Amino acid sequence: MSKFTILDTKATHDLPLKTSASHIGQSPGTGGYTGTRSGKSYLRITSFNAEEIKEWTTDKPIRPEDLTEGMLHWVDFVGVHDAEKVREMAESFELHPMMVEDILNVEQRPKLDTHEAHHYVVLKMARIRQEETEIQLEQVSFAMGNNFVLSFQEEAQDTFNPVRDRLHQKTRIRQRGPEYLLYALIDTIVDHYFYVLEHFGNALEDLEEQLMEDSSRDALMQLYHLKREMVSMRRAVWPLREVIGQLDRGESNLTNKTTKVYFRDLYDHIIQVIDTVETYRDLLSGMVDLYQSTVSNRMNSIMKVLTIISTVFIPITFLTGVYGMNFGYMPLLNHPEGFWIIAGFIVVAVLGMLLYFRKQKWI
Amino acid sequence: MSKFTILDTKATHDLPLKTSASHIGQSPGTGGYTGTRSGKSYLRITSFNAEEIKEWTTDKPIRPEDLTEGMLHWVDFVGVHDAEKVREMAESFELHPMMVEDILNVEQRPKLDTHEAHHYVVLKMARIRQEETEIQLEQVSFAMGNNFVLSFQEEAQDTFNPVRDRLHQKTRIRQRGPEYLLYALIDTIVDHYFYVLEHFGNALEDLEEQLMEDSSRDALMQLYHLKREMVSMRRAVWPLREVIGQLDRGESNLTNKTTKVYFRDLYDHIIQVIDTVETYRDLLSGMVDLYQSTVSNRMNSIMKVLTIISTVFIPITFLTGVYGMNFGYMPLLNHPEGFWIIAGFIVVAVLGMLLYFRKQKWI
Amino acid sequence: MSKFTILDTKATHDLPLKTSASHIGQSPGTGGYTGTRSGKSYLRITSFNAEEIKEWTTDKPIRPEDLTEGMLHWVDFVGVHDAEKVREMAESFELHPMMVEDILNVEQRPKLDTHEAHHYVVLKMARIRQEETEIQLEQVSFAMGNNFVLSFQEEAQDTFNPVRDRLHQKTRIRQRGPEYLLYALIDTIVDHYFYVLEHFGNALEDLEEQLMEDSSRDALMQLYHLKREMVSMRRAVWPLREVIGQLDRGESNLTNKTTKVYFRDLYDHIIQVIDTVETYRDLLSGMVDLYQSTVSNRMNSIMKVLTIISTVFIPITFLTGVYGMNFGYMPLLNHPEGFWIIAGFIVVAVLGMLLYFRKQKWI
Amino acid sequence: MSKFTILDTKATHDLPLKTSASHIGQSPGTGGYTGTRSGKSYLRITSFNAEEIKEWTTDKPIRPEDLTEGMLHWVDFVGVHDAEKVREMAESFELHPMMVEDILNVEQRPKLDTHEAHHYVVLKMARIRQEETEIQLEQVSFAMGNNFVLSFQEEAQDTFNPVRDRLHQKTRIRQRGPEYLLYALIDTIVDHYFYVLEHFGNALEDLEEQLMEDSSRDALMQLYHLKREMVSMRRAVWPLREVIGQLDRGESNLTNKTTKVYFRDLYDHIIQVIDTVETYRDLLSGMVDLYQSTVSNRMNSIMKVLTIISTVFIPITFLTGVYGMNFGYMPLLNHPEGFWIIAGFIVVAVLGMLLYFRKQKWI
Amino acid sequence: MSKFTILDTKATHDLPLKTSASHIGQSPGTGGYTGTRSGKSYLRITSFNAEEIKEWTTDKPIRPEDLTEGMLHWVDFVGVHDAEKVREMAESFELHPMMVEDILNVEQRPKLDTHEAHHYVVLKMARIRQEETEIQLEQVSFAMGNNFVLSFQEEAQDTFNPVRDRLHQKTRIRQRGPEYLLYALIDTIVDHYFYVLEHFGNALEDLEEQLMEDSSRDALMQLYHLKREMVSMRRAVWPLREVIGQLDRGESNLTNKTTKVYFRDLYDHIIQVIDTVETYRDLLSGMVDLYQSTVSNRMNSIMKVLTIISTVFIPITFLTGVYGMNFGYMPLLNHPEGFWIIAGFIVVAVLGMLLYFRKQKWI
Repeated sequence: MSKFTILDTKATHDLPLKTSASHIGQSPGTGGYTGTRSGKSYLRITSFNAEEIKEWTTDKPIRPEDLTEGMLHWVDFVGVHDAEKVREMAESFELHPMMVEDILNVEQRPKLDTHEAHHYVVLKMARIRQEETEIQLEQVSFAMGNNFVLSFQEEAQDTFNPVRDRLHQKTRIRQRGPEYLLYALIDTIVDHYFYVLEHFGNALEDLEEQLMEDSSRDALMQLYHLKREMVSMRRAVWPLREVIGQLDRGESNLTNKTTKVYFRDLYDHIIQVIDTVETYRDLLSGMVDLYQSTVSNRMNSIMKVLTIISTVFIPITFLTGVYGMNFGYMPLLNHPEGFWIIAGFIVVAVLGMLLYFRKQKWI
Repeated sequence: MSKFTILDTKATHDLPLKTSASHIGQSPGTGGYTGTRSGKSYLRITSFNAEEIKEWTTDKPIRPEDLTEGMLHWVDFVGVHDAEKVREMAESFELHPMMVEDILNVEQRPKLDTHEAHHYVVLKMARIRQEETEIQLEQVSFAMGNNFVLSFQEEAQDTFNPVRDRLHQKTRIRQRGPEYLLYALIDTIVDHYFYVLEHFGNALEDLEEQLMEDSSRDALMQLYHLKREMVSMRRAVWPLREVIGQLDRGESNLTNKTTKVYFRDLYDHIIQVIDTVETYRDLLSGMVDLYQSTVSNRMNSIMKVLTIISTVFIPITFLTGVYGMNFGYMPLLNHPEGFWIIAGFIVVAVLGMLLYFRKQKWI
Repeated sequence: MSKFTILDTKATHDLPLKTSASHIGQSPGTGGYTGTRSGKSYLRITSFNAEEIKEWTTDKPIRPEDLTEGMLHWVDFVGVHDAEKVREMAESFELHPMMVEDILNVEQRPKLDTHEAHHYVVLKMARIRQEETEIQLEQVSFAMGNNFVLSFQEEAQDTFNPVRDRLHQKTRIRQRGPEYLLYALIDTIVDHYFYVLEHFGNALEDLEEQLMEDSSRDALMQLYHLKREMVSMRRAVWPLREVIGQLDRGESNLTNKTTKVYFRDLYDHIIQVIDTVETYRDLLSGMVDLYQSTVSNRMNSIMKVLTIISTVFIPITFLTGVYGMNFGYMPLLNHPEGFWIIAGFIVVAVLGMLLYFRKQKWI
Repeated sequence: MSKFTILDTKATHDLPLKTSASHIGQSPGTGGYTGTRSGKSYLRITSFNAEEIKEWTTDKPIRPEDLTEGMLHWVDFVGVHDAEKVREMAESFELHPMMVEDILNVEQRPKLDTHEAHHYVVLKMARIRQEETEIQLEQVSFAMGNNFVLSFQEEAQDTFNPVRDRLHQKTRIRQRGPEYLLYALIDTIVDHYFYVLEHFGNALEDLEEQLMEDSSRDALMQLYHLKREMVSMRRAVWPLREVIGQLDRGESNLTNKTTKVYFRDLYDHIIQVIDTVETYRDLLSGMVDLYQSTVSNRMNSIMKVLTIISTVFIPITFLTGVYGMNFGYMPLLNHPEGFWIIAGFIVVAVLGMLLYFRKQKWI
Repeated sequence: MSKFTILDTKATHDLPLKTSASHIGQSPGTGGYTGTRSGKSYLRITSFNAEEIKEWTTDKPIRPEDLTEGMLHWVDFVGVHDAEKVREMAESFELHPMMVEDILNVEQRPKLDTHEAHHYVVLKMARIRQEETEIQLEQVSFAMGNNFVLSFQEEAQDTFNPVRDRLHQKTRIRQRGPEYLLYALIDTIVDHYFYVLEHFGNALEDLEEQLMEDSSRDALMQLYHLKREMVSMRRAVWPLREVIGQLDRGESNLTNKTTKVYFRDLYDHIIQVIDTVETYRDLLSGMVDLYQSTVSNRMNSIMKVLTIISTVFIPITFLTGVYGMNFGYMPLLNHPEGFWIIAGFIVVAVLGMLLYFRKQKWI
């Protein structure tokens, strides 16, 4: 059973923008890394054409001059916290300074931009964090030129491995231009959304079943947690629609006739992801109602028990109180069958009340 | 009485996208079947022109060369889980690879696409699942060429039988082109929506009556279940609006002057379906309020009983407690009529309280 | 006091689309009557020009040849359940088959259509059903040609009488063309909306006053009932906006310069009707809050009474219990003033608690 | 402290459209006055040019011939319930019949219309009704011609006095055309919205403070009342946006280059009014939550007291009951220190329970 | 821990528009200051070109003639409550009278306007008020001419210091025109939004944690307070989107090719601010649900305790009452082991009930 649990409240509940207001009033294009990751950064370069392919890893920034001509190059930069190295490489590839800032500011909204000869795409990659407990969003930026695609990730991940495999397998991807490579990389990211949503859907189903039986605080916390995760997903995928929509409608000159059909397909996928996210939000709203009704119902049934017991015993307890009074004379008190008469009366009263409750459909 | 019951929670609550994230990063156009159905697949071919009609069934993929010239062919493919056969047939009819993927991926959003000479329509067919208990949505894809309409279903169903009957009856449908056949098939599917919504409306009415009298947990579950079904229906019909709208507005060159009036009518029907779905959602929201108010009311009336009984007995029980004390001297204790004086006092107190409650309109 | 009561739950709560899914997969234009009414159908023909006017009633379908030339003819068909007669007449007037289906399908959404020389308008007429208890919506269809206006109603009603009166009075309406007659008929229907909304507004006011004083279940039922009626009204009037808007914007060639100002005015009225419906929905939402708060408040005040009585008596009852114990020695037990000391203690305790409650503003 | 109180429920809660459905099916342009006001009607004419100004009052309808040439005339008609006089004057000024109906129908939606040489503006004037208790909306209609502006009010008010003062003071307004005069009059009305909203804002603040301390029914009624007032305001100002927007965008030829900047400013003001109204609605929604939470909280704290007292006393009362039983032998009963042992046990039990409650953070 | 506390309810809850309706019906362009601030006003002038820079402060209004030619001048006017001085300066710089009114009316909605040679931008600056307790919004207006940028603030603040520092550092900003300076100033203000939202986000996180553990009234007040702050932020940033959007789309001729990329970036930032504000609103809504559920849960658990204790003790207390009755004969009364038999019965009853509760999962 896949379940989204809350291991570490602090980590789970990181709100957006927590760390992004670091350099008020600075020159544009001079902002540094805004995330929280660290470690060693490195580059993984894959150069290929229809005939051959080579792949190597380095921890030095690469320059366009280093790249073999007549090949298409995919430079995968891992570890954008190393702002120095990002800047150095961006400069040699002549990326626009504003774009460099966007690459480093990992709180960026997904977007598509074109400056001079280069196209830039910023988006969010979704993953299930370790032990299948929560959705992790990581920023990935792409810069595309004539003969290269640069990708910038925060952490080393196996997200792009399927694309690497296809590159080695001499498939269509080897014969197409950088647009197709960019498409393949974005497509992989979007496929991951489906994967994440599938997990999320399972968690939702588990929660639903739980809510139907149980009104515990845990279920509520879980519900609230899932709601928050959906808020995050929504922030990640809605802007993507516009980004891919621009590519699909060919507003950017990035897409040519051949790749257009693929971006169209990608657009359909994005719409489907958004659709699912919205449906999940809908379902979660319904579950809040369900939860609150369950709680009310539960309370109701507890109240019912209390009422019935009180209502049955309070009058007869009063009766015993009456005969517990110390008056010298009370009717029946000295009657030999007095106790049995009162006891009989009590039994009748109890039965009468139970019948009344049954009539009211309380029991 | 038609009723939507929950036979099998698991089956009923299948969330969308549960099984679609199977091939991350694969080449586009290479995805397989994403549904859960299995069994034998077969083709049912109906070839006709104004003069003659023939109909046969085969379990082998058919090729365009196999089809008589001068006739219009409707090939109804049942069982898209047989991905192999779908691909084989698609290739011989020269369908676009992306479309083949859409046919196999039964989690597709309704859409209209045109590639080269072919038009593709993907939509959802709605049925009341066995024993009238829930809405089942199944994907149906159409591909239309010059002289053929291919339809791809997941399961054998009698949905298209009325169209078959009309084909045999030498009606208008026999003299028109493939657009009209496509229209007739989609129209049948949309008619089924009305049928399903009618059933749904009955269930809604039953539920409404139930909610007015009863605040049981079952009613809540039923309410929640209907809400979910409407979420599904909504996902199925909203995109259809755009699809049929495109046909109606003649953006696609699929519609000619003669068929335009029919697609216009179809569009009106879709709008009406959406309208009804939205109205039902509205009513369901109102019912949640109704349910919660019913629960509150019920609790209120239970509380009232408790309060009244407690309020009446607690003070007089105290009084008996007083005369139960073992003091040597208490006023009235040794008075010969002591008991009757106290008893009278108790009666007066009870009547006074009952009058007060009546004044407060609690009883 | 006008009041919307629920005489017959069944009748009141007819949901839309309950009976419309009758002919799945049939040829377009061949559907029959979808309503529930029956009885004798008849035609009421009013032929007029600036000079003369004649009016007669018949129960046979009329043909264009039967109509005097040089006059404008208004044929009011009452009883569309007589599908046979409708079809016969429609054929002789050369109405489009799809339109005939729309006339018979009384679950139609309001719409405007133009086919060849004829214009078609379908809309909903609103009435307060007998004994001022609920809104009844009935479909009215119009077909307009060069020298005639056909109107199709389900039931004989006095809705159009004012127009008939004006025709007899030699007013402007006698000198204008069919567009003006059509305008006058639609205007009468829209005027009826105002009338219905006025009644509805009164019911709303009554309900509001009721809710402020009373949290009974009846008020809730009434509230829910009004909400449902507004959902129906909304379905009837929203699409009308588009219909009249098209006429006003002159998208249809139905409106000429002279009639345009009238359709503009009609459009303003529709907007006002929609505005009122939306405002009523808003108010009804507010009333749900009001109702729930009233219920909460009521419960609160009941709880308060319970708490106070319990809190006052429980401790002193305990005290009497103490002195009811059968121990040989208890302090004060044998004191001659023992009872009075305890009684005094009890009085002090009660007063203390009452003071505390007053301080807490509970009493 | 300004406060919106509910003096007269009936008057306060007049719903829109209560009296407007008076003439179903009548000819357009023949409707009468739809409001509830009465009294003497009169005209106040202000004629001016850059050099001179004269002002007089009459109770006879005025005709264009009566007006001095070379001057701009502002005819302020007070008391539109005098439909006869309105019609007479409208005829002599050649106003369009439909517009006359709009002037008389005081349930009109704000709008801008142009017929032939005249421009018509209908809008709502907002006032705080006497004793600062509620918002009163009154319809004001304007008709503008070459050398005149007609204004039609329901009641004599001091709203336009500031404009009159400016006219006497030889300011800019004396040298401009009728458009500027119209602008000045509308601007005054919009300024009044700010004034009303300011009062409303104060009432909102008072209410907010009240809600934080108090969950009485009065606060709820006040909240509900303010909500309703905002619904009315909203109906009045939203359509105004479109009206002024049309003037600002110069769609009407009413605005020339010089006045355009003023209408632009007016448009900004309207947007600000709408913005404030929406913000107030938002705040009021928040207050409903606040109110309901306050009520819940209150109930909670009452429940807590009940629970604690019950929980403390019920067990020890049981104990006294045990020793109140009349068995010949019970442990400790005859023990000389029996009472003190039991009393000690009771004290320990009570302390134990209090400690438990403290641990649970209930006290 | 940063926390938004409510020091002074009055100050915190200033509603918009509280003081803006001061001059009804006055000539446009003659309104005075509408805020509440006072003190000494002064100007801080920074004149610079690529080579040199000078900066001085004065408390006299400055005129364009006073400014050195060949330099770009930034005149920062602090203290717009000094309406006289603002007007004097505005006149010498030939600002449009309507704009002067906008500068003085500090309740203005953010907007962009162009009159003749000057561009005007009005927006809101956000700050965390002293002791990090609440968001303070202050209006800042800009007027831009050929060689100057005027900024008008209400209070002296250090918001623009980073821009001043950059001016002194001979960066890019020294070589660009007034558009770039304007951009830099607005950018600083937008950066402040991020800073404020970061603080807000922290407060939100704190609150969330608090709500999960605690259902106190304070948490509710805090929640409500944060909601109100977000309503204010929203009012400030939404219109900004349009303002910057116009600049970005180049609708105004203010932006040239070079600065366009910066305004584009600014637009992205605004979108991100809006996005965050909306997300926070979403989260706050979710927290209201969370709070209410927490309250319900709490009540539930209290009820449970009450029910269990009552249910356990009420029946056995009745039993002791029975044997407290003073009848001469009662079964077991005179049995030597009578007490122990009854005591045993009581123990069994209690255990039975506890078992039942466990089965019901109440304990």
